[in-house]
Amino acid sequence: MLALQPREPGVYEGHTHAGYWNMVGPYGGATAALMLHSILQHPDCLGDPVALTVNFAGPVASGPYRIEATPVRTNRSTQHWTVVLLQDDENGDQQVTTTATAVTAVRRDTFSIEDGRPPHMPDPATCERFDTTGAMEWLQRYDMRVVTGAIPKVWDDSAHEPVSQLWVRDNPPRALDFPALAALCDVFFPRVWLRRARRVPAGTVSITTYFHADRAQLAAQGDQHVLGQADAQAFRNGFFDQSAQVWDAKGQLLATSHQTVYYKE
Amino acid sequence: MLALQPREPGVYEGHTHAGYWNMVGPYGGATAALMLHSILQHPDCLGDPVALTVNFAGPVASGPYRIEATPVRTNRSTQHWTVVLLQDDENGDQQVTTTATAVTAVRRDTFSIEDGRPPHMPDPATCERFDTTGAMEWLQRYDMRVVTGAIPKVWDDSAHEPVSQLWVRDNPPRALDFPALAALCDVFFPRVWLRRARRVPAGTVSITTYFHADRAQLAAQGDQHVLGQADAQAFRNGFFDQSAQVWDAKGQLLATSHQTVYYKE
Repeated sequence: MLALQPREPGVYEGHTHAGYWNMVGPYGGATAALMLHSILQHPDCLGDPVALTVNFAGPVASGPYRIEATPVRTNRSTQHWTVVLLQDDENGDQQVTTTATAVTAVRRDTFSIEDGRPPHMPDPATCERFDTTGAMEWLQRYDMRVVTGAIPKVWDDSAHEPVSQLWVRDNPPRALDFPALAALCDVFFPRVWLRRARRVPAGTVSITTYFHADRAQLAAQGDQHVLGQADAQAFRNGFFDQSAQVWDAKGQLLATSHQTVYYKE
Repeated sequence: MLALQPREPGVYEGHTHAGYWNMVGPYGGATAALMLHSILQHPDCLGDPVALTVNFAGPVASGPYRIEATPVRTNRSTQHWTVVLLQDDENGDQQVTTTATAVTAVRRDTFSIEDGRPPHMPDPATCERFDTTGAMEWLQRYDMRVVTGAIPKVWDDSAHEPVSQLWVRDNPPRALDFPALAALCDVFFPRVWLRRARRVPAGTVSITTYFHADRAQLAAQGDQHVLGQADAQAFRNGFFDQSAQVWDAKGQLLATSHQTVYYKE
């Protein structure tokens, strides 16, 4: 999926991957992973990801694309990035489909503590696997075990708490890395569908992920299921905010993530 | 404070404002407001702000700066922006001090609801005003009435809940607008100081704000105090995440905001 051909430092060419297709373009989490991957592949990249913001400016079409990742500022222990994903439109004009900014850093041991506790969840092996038969292609790439807040089976305009809790990992299972974690932060279906039990057109406009994990924590996690939780605060005139937390199998936070999502009606 | 001289569409020159000075540069909220202002002043700007991410790449020095705000993609009802703040370093080389991305949109009436309830707070007129005598200059620009989670009076390494709740407005009072709201989302002191009752070096690296308010809600708010709440989830190896909510005087969300903050020790 993340096959980028470097043309010069920070400039890559690639092709969309059918395996992560959503309704009208690639799964947003896969695009976020791609933007981060372009940074981590850069020969000048300093440290590991701390923050990533990806803005979905326009549709990504099936076909070739170009990514330009630029380290706009390199400090002693932090580095700031801008990234753009470009595609030619039908007239051959280059269009920006996606923008991103990121911060990478060399992290040092400091006082560390976390206050958010993971929800109590049954062991993933005992939870029913979400049936993705006939669902969009990108959903086939995840093994999800939903404990709370599954996608409504009946679209009856009834009110629900907009909270979902689930176990999730890549399918087939593979060891967790930073791009995979960036993608996992976007696996939650739009909160407005759950809140209203109504399936309205909706799509992420901008997502920001903060990485708490270092490489050692990712390595310890391996290919086990992560615990994910998503919620929302405000639905207002076409946009809502959605927040997510992703914990490792031991209950330690891997990432916290926030997005603003467009919806219709 | 937001005096930008347009040189060409989206290109501005300005000068840092001593009235918003923090310890080693301008107050980050003022810089965020400036980045947003450069977008809203652009002759091609479509709609009102929905999302704003500001990355503090390097220190902003006292002196002149240049801002370039670019509408990288304009859709039917949404527009995507990239912004950079540039300053010459001591060798006369142009440096990126700050980057931003933003989404603006023409918003339409839709189903709207919010689930986050504001904390119960006494009337701001009955709350003691935070004494900023001798404090940094930018703090003089705010009238804060802290109800919960004031800055520790004793730095004794004791454990605290990292939650603060306060009333706040500009000082002198003035009608709320989008840049002022962007700045207000950053008024909370670093959560690590509260959590640990220890004043370690700390600074925002990246802040993302989602705007729920439209112009009518801002106009109805006028110059009244807004209600702000800040919290944190994870402090880990030099970075923590801080989240904030800002409600209007009637208890309706104006904005939700998240940042990752560097800290030492």
